[in-house]
Amino acid sequence: MQAGKASVIFDRPPYILGGASIAGKKEGQGPLGKLFDAVEEDDMFGKDNWEEAESELQKRTVKLAIEKCGLANRDIRYLLGGDLLGQLIATSFGVMELEIPLYGLYGACSTMGEAMGLGAMLTAGGFADKLAALASSHFATAEKQFRYPLEYGNQRPYSATWTVTGCGAVILSPRPEGDPEGKITAVTTGRIVDLGVKDSMNMGAAMAPAAFHTIWQNFQDLRVNESWYDKIITGDLGAVGRKILLDLMRKNGHDLEKVHMDCGIEIFDPESQDTHAGGSGCGCSAVTLCSYILPKLKKREWKRVLFVPTGALLSTVSFNEGQSVPGIAHGVVIESP
Amino acid sequence: MQAGKASVIFDRPPYILGGASIAGKKEGQGPLGKLFDAVEEDDMFGKDNWEEAESELQKRTVKLAIEKCGLANRDIRYLLGGDLLGQLIATSFGVMELEIPLYGLYGACSTMGEAMGLGAMLTAGGFADKLAALASSHFATAEKQFRYPLEYGNQRPYSATWTVTGCGAVILSPRPEGDPEGKITAVTTGRIVDLGVKDSMNMGAAMAPAAFHTIWQNFQDLRVNESWYDKIITGDLGAVGRKILLDLMRKNGHDLEKVHMDCGIEIFDPESQDTHAGGSGCGCSAVTLCSYILPKLKKREWKRVLFVPTGALLSTVSFNEGQSVPGIAHGVVIESP
Repeated sequence: MQAGKASVIFDRPPYILGGASIAGKKEGQGPLGKLFDAVEEDDMFGKDNWEEAESELQKRTVKLAIEKCGLANRDIRYLLGGDLLGQLIATSFGVMELEIPLYGLYGACSTMGEAMGLGAMLTAGGFADKLAALASSHFATAEKQFRYPLEYGNQRPYSATWTVTGCGAVILSPRPEGDPEGKITAVTTGRIVDLGVKDSMNMGAAMAPAAFHTIWQNFQDLRVNESWYDKIITGDLGAVGRKILLDLMRKNGHDLEKVHMDCGIEIFDPESQDTHAGGSGCGCSAVTLCSYILPKLKKREWKRVLFVPTGALLSTVSFNEGQSVPGIAHGVVIESP
Repeated sequence: MQAGKASVIFDRPPYILGGASIAGKKEGQGPLGKLFDAVEEDDMFGKDNWEEAESELQKRTVKLAIEKCGLANRDIRYLLGGDLLGQLIATSFGVMELEIPLYGLYGACSTMGEAMGLGAMLTAGGFADKLAALASSHFATAEKQFRYPLEYGNQRPYSATWTVTGCGAVILSPRPEGDPEGKITAVTTGRIVDLGVKDSMNMGAAMAPAAFHTIWQNFQDLRVNESWYDKIITGDLGAVGRKILLDLMRKNGHDLEKVHMDCGIEIFDPESQDTHAGGSGCGCSAVTLCSYILPKLKKREWKRVLFVPTGALLSTVSFNEGQSVPGIAHGVVIESP
């Protein structure tokens, strides 16, 4: 059912049958390290280059998610997913051998929200018995794509975030088969918001207005406020973006101080891990969802969360041409199963 | 309703209320030139660089499609679309000021098929009263992204195609409001197919196996064959890819010689326009759909077509790392309204 301007409320909410998270060594040493399904010590994932490493990461994660749900590749109707790289090459080469029909998505670091939102609609609409939603990022592919060669060893300002090496994948179904981890009861689709931030080393500031817009729209469309949720969880605003989001919400009459959590802040310990403002990348919210958020929903420690992966629509081409960095954020309401 | 392994048949097919196509000067001089809604003589679309030009092209096209259907921006629930550029910057910056919730897609040149397939499911599922599906490409942004600087004036082999400067957009709705141009009765979602083609100047050969796979899957899932369609229309195989597709189909017992049409072959005159194997780019199938295919369906010259935009999953990074060029093709069955 359409609700308000940009939301959907499901009469029969699709279930998250299960999920899987695989992360890199640095993420394994962080506060969530013990929660991931697997931590790969080799940044190359046994491959010859960074892009193949990210592809291998995706493939392993999707396979693991399918296995954990007691399913086979042929049970999965669609894959919806993406990564940060130009032309989605981590995904294209990663999921190829699974031989599952693919919808490639690009929402920058909001991709997990985009995949789950679209996936929930396809599932609830009766078009997929089972599907997989996934997103990945890799520190080294992202640095190569967006910033400097690693060998250059550039200085990073304190507003910068650290791209997470990780992939998260969930399996959605219209029915609560097995031992589901949650259900998706509503979706709020984001639009592009641009307040003119031009600093590619401050993604949090670029994304916070988009996160604000999606959360605010969700409140309007569902006629709720922050008290409706046990947590409102953004993707990778980091410490700088969080402050801006809380300010924007406060100015609009909402106090998110206690209810807000950011995956980018949770995933690293800034003191010991030198990650500055926090973690980022599509993989950041995806692995935090699968390792930390879904288990809490399953155990009913939380009953309802608004999961809002946030993306900064940055490319080296647009940046070098002097364009700003617009943001987008996709909201998914996830409840205990 | 799910059909076979990778298809959906709609009990209540979503309608294509209308579409719009805007193309560049060269496309305007080609065989379809008079059919486009507009031809822009300025390759820069009045902007300062190629990427902004493509963004402007997208914005104008979506606005025109909305206007032609007698609608306003606020009537459009979602935009589903993309382009060929890294991080979809043509789309991100193009549709921003429309303020419509966005699902960014990347399917290389299959993007129009991906957008219409997903869009049809969202519409038929009751999640969007109206939505827009779109795809664009621009010759100069694509050359810059994938090949050589234009100033270098590199030689192009005869297997190469010419990226179309153009954008096509359609408006979908669950109801036949106004004077609809067609309806989407089924969708076959493609998967990645890689036969190991490594020649970035021969995209037709890279995409033909994917087109074959999707068309063959459509036949299996819907229990039909080539006689079911007035036309089977691929995106941008060009002359080389068409030959491979027909060979592959023939070896599997299907003669597509008469029923097959390729947008890349239709859009340019290879003799007078020096375009070699044909046109390509997401815009190629998108503008051909909106200017040529939909009008024929509306006039019932054709009653049912299988529209199969084809994508080559190429990036300079993967190519330079010695990877092959996998293909993907998304099928959409469009019938007279």
